[in-house]
Amino acid sequence: MAADTPYVPPVSDYAFLYGEAFGLDLVARSSGGEITAEDAAEIVAGAGEFAASVLAPLEAVGDQVGAQLVDGTVRLPEGFAEAYLALVESGWITAEAPASAGGDGLPESVRAGLGEIWNASNAAFALCWLLTAGQIHALDAVASPEMREKFLTKLVSGEWTGTMNLTEPDAGTDLGAIRTMATPNDDGSWAISGQKIFITWGDHDIAENILHLVLARTPGAPEGAKGLSLFVVPRNHVADDGTVGERNGVTTVALEHKLGIHASPTCVLAYEGATGYLAGELHGGLAGMFVMMNSARAGMGFQATGISDRAYQQALAYAESRLQGPVIGRPAGTPIAQHPDVQRMLLSMSSRIFAMRALGVFTGDLFDRAETDGTGALAEFFVPILKGWATEDALLVTSDAIQVHGGMGFIEETGVAQHYRDARIMPIYEGTTAIQSNDLVGRKVIRDQGATAETLFVQIDETIAHLRALSHDVAQRTADRLERAVAASRRATADLIGFAGSPRDAYAVSVPYLMLLGTLAGGWMHGFAVVATLGSADADAARLTSADFYGAHHLPRVHALAETVAAGEIA
Amino acid sequence: MAADTPYVPPVSDYAFLYGEAFGLDLVARSSGGEITAEDAAEIVAGAGEFAASVLAPLEAVGDQVGAQLVDGTVRLPEGFAEAYLALVESGWITAEAPASAGGDGLPESVRAGLGEIWNASNAAFALCWLLTAGQIHALDAVASPEMREKFLTKLVSGEWTGTMNLTEPDAGTDLGAIRTMATPNDDGSWAISGQKIFITWGDHDIAENILHLVLARTPGAPEGAKGLSLFVVPRNHVADDGTVGERNGVTTVALEHKLGIHASPTCVLAYEGATGYLAGELHGGLAGMFVMMNSARAGMGFQATGISDRAYQQALAYAESRLQGPVIGRPAGTPIAQHPDVQRMLLSMSSRIFAMRALGVFTGDLFDRAETDGTGALAEFFVPILKGWATEDALLVTSDAIQVHGGMGFIEETGVAQHYRDARIMPIYEGTTAIQSNDLVGRKVIRDQGATAETLFVQIDETIAHLRALSHDVAQRTADRLERAVAASRRATADLIGFAGSPRDAYAVSVPYLMLLGTLAGGWMHGFAVVATLGSADADAARLTSADFYGAHHLPRVHALAETVAAGEIA
Repeated sequence: MAADTPYVPPVSDYAFLYGEAFGLDLVARSSGGEITAEDAAEIVAGAGEFAASVLAPLEAVGDQVGAQLVDGTVRLPEGFAEAYLALVESGWITAEAPASAGGDGLPESVRAGLGEIWNASNAAFALCWLLTAGQIHALDAVASPEMREKFLTKLVSGEWTGTMNLTEPDAGTDLGAIRTMATPNDDGSWAISGQKIFITWGDHDIAENILHLVLARTPGAPEGAKGLSLFVVPRNHVADDGTVGERNGVTTVALEHKLGIHASPTCVLAYEGATGYLAGELHGGLAGMFVMMNSARAGMGFQATGISDRAYQQALAYAESRLQGPVIGRPAGTPIAQHPDVQRMLLSMSSRIFAMRALGVFTGDLFDRAETDGTGALAEFFVPILKGWATEDALLVTSDAIQVHGGMGFIEETGVAQHYRDARIMPIYEGTTAIQSNDLVGRKVIRDQGATAETLFVQIDETIAHLRALSHDVAQRTADRLERAVAASRRATADLIGFAGSPRDAYAVSVPYLMLLGTLAGGWMHGFAVVATLGSADADAARLTSADFYGAHHLPRVHALAETVAAGEIA
Repeated sequence: MAADTPYVPPVSDYAFLYGEAFGLDLVARSSGGEITAEDAAEIVAGAGEFAASVLAPLEAVGDQVGAQLVDGTVRLPEGFAEAYLALVESGWITAEAPASAGGDGLPESVRAGLGEIWNASNAAFALCWLLTAGQIHALDAVASPEMREKFLTKLVSGEWTGTMNLTEPDAGTDLGAIRTMATPNDDGSWAISGQKIFITWGDHDIAENILHLVLARTPGAPEGAKGLSLFVVPRNHVADDGTVGERNGVTTVALEHKLGIHASPTCVLAYEGATGYLAGELHGGLAGMFVMMNSARAGMGFQATGISDRAYQQALAYAESRLQGPVIGRPAGTPIAQHPDVQRMLLSMSSRIFAMRALGVFTGDLFDRAETDGTGALAEFFVPILKGWATEDALLVTSDAIQVHGGMGFIEETGVAQHYRDARIMPIYEGTTAIQSNDLVGRKVIRDQGATAETLFVQIDETIAHLRALSHDVAQRTADRLERAVAASRRATADLIGFAGSPRDAYAVSVPYLMLLGTLAGGWMHGFAVVATLGSADADAARLTSADFYGAHHLPRVHALAETVAAGEIA
């Protein structure tokens, strides 16, 4: 049964990305030699082994049984609590936490690999500590020493989990409309009252306590988003000595029935005078929340890669084992994987996945070198692109995975439809694709008049020059295609900046522009792969095929999107 | 609640398509004046009223409860049997059946409108009589006078329903692998034994009897598809006087648990010496089955339009009622429908839907005029395009409908996720998109060396000339875009024909080529709409916006796809 396809962590791809793809050992560079590409690949392999053996087997039951609200408490299916405990004990959560917060501080480039693996093996489950990781970053940025000791340490150890509480029934994208109130208590704490919705892992029974990071308004605060403050609200009270006590004033009033990620409890939480603790400055809530949000957004790129790869692996296993009809130009007994159109779909998927995966590592490395090499602006530039483009393309990859299965793909027991359902939330949560594209266009392109975008294009020009120097068909074709794609992207960027005075024009094509840049960046990643592969003695020819395919099937989309961007608003 | 969005049949679009879009009353032309565009629009309106009031209210319960297998019998949710009876009594099934089979013989162009409406209101339910209609066409083509009297009349009246039995566990796309056996009985009937899977509406409790049209092999028949014959196998025996008796030897051994269309029972049927009746020639089974299949394939185009429009209507209703955040360039209190990116998604959906809808009517008209005007070849050319392209694009439309809802779209109670799940089967059943593209490329482009394709391009050239003659920005832009798209399509067609000697190259890009022609045809349909709209005194400006949007956002895909087609196989 295809649903039993074991999960195989993409270790060789990560070894290539860490050590070869970008022409050097990028992990050693950013860690000052403390960790090498070889170490990093081993770390990824270790996580992969854990994920494949502990997390992946829970994926189907997580989908079929899902989280359940029983007598006011959320219950996860059997096995989840044990798996979470095993995760904590194996130290992965601490490994990923920044050193400043008491973690091992693995580089972001390595976290990209881990993020993919957690999500590939069990995306619904992985959300639990993805949000914990986000809260770790937020508290590390804003928490007082007392708060660090009392709360942050428990998150870094993995003993407790974290949530992000922004959305309310009438405040989704528009945070300024938040109405949850925090009023001061006599002891310096705050009493939080209001309703929050869409709270991921807002309640569960797999860890001792949950820390809610809640955006709320205080009495007399300014209107809108500038009047919001951030509070840590533990689900259960925590005594000064750290012991966990009675329930705080927050209850799970409903659990959503969703299209996918059924094992990720999406809660409606009612706060009724719950005790909270101010995190960071009064009225400075957005800053802390954005630290958490940015962490989660990059995490979404890895989730997109992970869900895509899991779906791809299942489709590949099915296609390589299924015999159906004579395969043109191949001997009898050839499986459907070699039917020209099935081969097309498999290459379409795998070349997209490589592009996402590589951009995840590349962006992680830019963050790792932000302080030393000034790569922060480009890193921030890629966050909305990775989140927006990778999650949108993941919808297409998971759709192809169903299509490869034919009629079996539509049968739930096959298991591949789960990925299609799970994936659909990704372009929505942690800021929709439109929100990402507004961030990209408004803050990262128009604001600096395309300067950061141009630094990207110049770097792609350099890769093209490297490709030109190689006497190989694929290198030349890739150079040709990238050259035309960069030219179209420069035109599109100029067109977009030209709309600065008529913002409706800019924002009417901001998503096409984001998809254009994502598609271009994916082609660039393949360009790196071609250069590295042809420069290596034991070249893996499959990387050239993947790059050539991406160049012929996906990269041309840049031209269509550039034409769309040029049109501006049509209404 | 958005799930309560009432279904509004697109009557004005059909009135425009029947009477104005193509520069004349095409219903009157094909019916020799017997029916006018006005009549046809009234027929569509009548069906729409019935569908909106009787079928649409059952959609949610059909999804949530679905078909159930209880003690060997398939049960539909409450209300389905009554609704089906109402459908039969209102005469719609008979209205759509060809006059030669005893029906009212509505033109295919009008059936396109009805097909959309049945599927929009309740796609899972509509499959029931879509397959009945297919069997009506097949039996009308091949059945003996006795069989017509005994079986066909019951289908045309709607009293009994029909199914199509091709697929077996090891024979999906490859019909030659079918192993179900038919051995002759003494009385001239046949004993059918074997297992068939994925049988849509293979059992149910909403009508008195079911006629299975079964492909099976007879003793001593040639190997492969040429040894298949077609049999009518009633679920319950039928006496010579037409009375329905005991169960025949066919049982429902399982019901599939599917991603979508839960109210459409997908059965595993076991035939154990079931009595069947040869339909048509011995060993000539494929011919009859292909009549049924072709009818079903065109029907899929209408299903794609219907599901897409229902999802769009729900997204539009949500977007027009939801307030969230300030809308750029619009006064406070403007709903999200006018956020630039939501507006983009809504136009993306509606412009695609118009393109599908129009091509459905246009193709229906080509069939209607096949005998008188020799339009049969182009009609057949459009069948795989309509089936392949419209069903693939419907995935994007239903995905956009979720995205417009933001987080609410992922909640099942909202109801919009159902369309996304339901739609996913369309590019698979009745021949996958790859099968459609192989039909298009092999039988309809390479075989005649692009002659039929060129007749299409020449007709688009004419539309471009009409657009050029109009002094309006949108007309000129549409002409420019179509001109470039036709040029790219001619090149792609030549590239494809150039691959005739290396079929793997041709079939590796057959789906991109199909999508290219579908996208082009959609642009052409909008071209007609622009000409008709600008030539009309009471022009609907929204049609110009829709065409302009399609030209800027969807039509440019032709250029990307042409580049893909030129590349041939990459492996």
